[in-house]
Amino acid sequence: MSDVRVHNLSISLDGFATGDGQAADAPFGHAGERLHEWMFATRFWNRMGGGRGGRGGADNAFASLHDPGIGAEIMGAGKFGPPGWQDNPGWRGWWGADPPFHTPVFVLTHRPRPSIEMEGGTTFHFLDAAPAEALDKAREAAGDQDVRLGGGPSVVRDFLAEGLVDQLHVVQVPIVLGRGIRLWDGLETLETRYDVEAVSTPSGVTHLTFTTKAR
Amino acid sequence: MSDVRVHNLSISLDGFATGDGQAADAPFGHAGERLHEWMFATRFWNRMGGGRGGRGGADNAFASLHDPGIGAEIMGAGKFGPPGWQDNPGWRGWWGADPPFHTPVFVLTHRPRPSIEMEGGTTFHFLDAAPAEALDKAREAAGDQDVRLGGGPSVVRDFLAEGLVDQLHVVQVPIVLGRGIRLWDGLETLETRYDVEAVSTPSGVTHLTFTTKAR
Repeated sequence: MSDVRVHNLSISLDGFATGDGQAADAPFGHAGERLHEWMFATRFWNRMGGGRGGRGGADNAFASLHDPGIGAEIMGAGKFGPPGWQDNPGWRGWWGADPPFHTPVFVLTHRPRPSIEMEGGTTFHFLDAAPAEALDKAREAAGDQDVRLGGGPSVVRDFLAEGLVDQLHVVQVPIVLGRGIRLWDGLETLETRYDVEAVSTPSGVTHLTFTTKAR
Repeated sequence: MSDVRVHNLSISLDGFATGDGQAADAPFGHAGERLHEWMFATRFWNRMGGGRGGRGGADNAFASLHDPGIGAEIMGAGKFGPPGWQDNPGWRGWWGADPPFHTPVFVLTHRPRPSIEMEGGTTFHFLDAAPAEALDKAREAAGDQDVRLGGGPSVVRDFLAEGLVDQLHVVQVPIVLGRGIRLWDGLETLETRYDVEAVSTPSGVTHLTFTTKAR
């Protein structure tokens, strides 16, 4: 069976994956860009924007795992738009006409709407569904490829709690955010189900990988 | 002026430096020994117990910084004994007749008692004092040497909040404890006052060092 993978989920030392006060002009709240500076500096990120250059080391290697072998993404309502996007019938995500997914994307929301076909292969589908049910849909759409669980933190936490994640890549950034949405809550002893590795890199972040133990 | 240093403060991924349910037979509560296995494996630790052997790599190098150049320690009541030790007039700490401090140790408690002189140069003094006042006493006792802030997490947090810590060494262990006492609460933007480095080691832990920016 295909894997469920989380990539490039950046958290602060105190475990917040997004800050307080998310809004249309602040997708990560008061955290601003601080959780993702390591990623913006990579070749992976520059190439995605059509540019060149950037760091080519370990941060880039980890970041680049985001795309290959993915057939569908699942994301939470909080990733698709700022609070209240459900009231805006014209909202089509943060990413412009050609979003960087290039696959079906299943957006979990209690207020589903008709699917939206974007350029470049991305289609947004809207689902009011529990994790396992959403995963069934995404797996069907992904064929023999993997499913990316795109965040935000609450959705990743829900899937982790139900044992539905095979690969989890967390990037710990050495800042103390103080407030926001925590990743680790309710996940006591999570590490016992995974092989865990940690590696710090010259940018100052630490990559943590959780890989399901051989079945 | 001498530095205030924190060494070998081990925390879980979710930021807990001690678990839930501290007791005489469980100094770190439900965390057990999981936060300190990396340290027990070092040459530093074995030598302290009069033995030999153990790992000699980066974990050992960091751990060994604990002793040199220290003239006094400050610790919280929760490090000196299990909850309620103040009701036991015979309690002399966890460490036996010859505690591993070998300097004056100032124990912060709202119920001070007479000083206790132990073997090997350790004397426990008991103070009902705020961080800055306790630090004045410890600095006086330390002469031209540094003051170690020995924990637990609540005391370290209080000193950090007041800007009284010059060197902070945190060891992040890849486990999710779920409950206990958190280190980072109330310390938003702490990193802006320090030069921060992270390095992961073959044992799987990540050493984080916070060093006060040049004054």
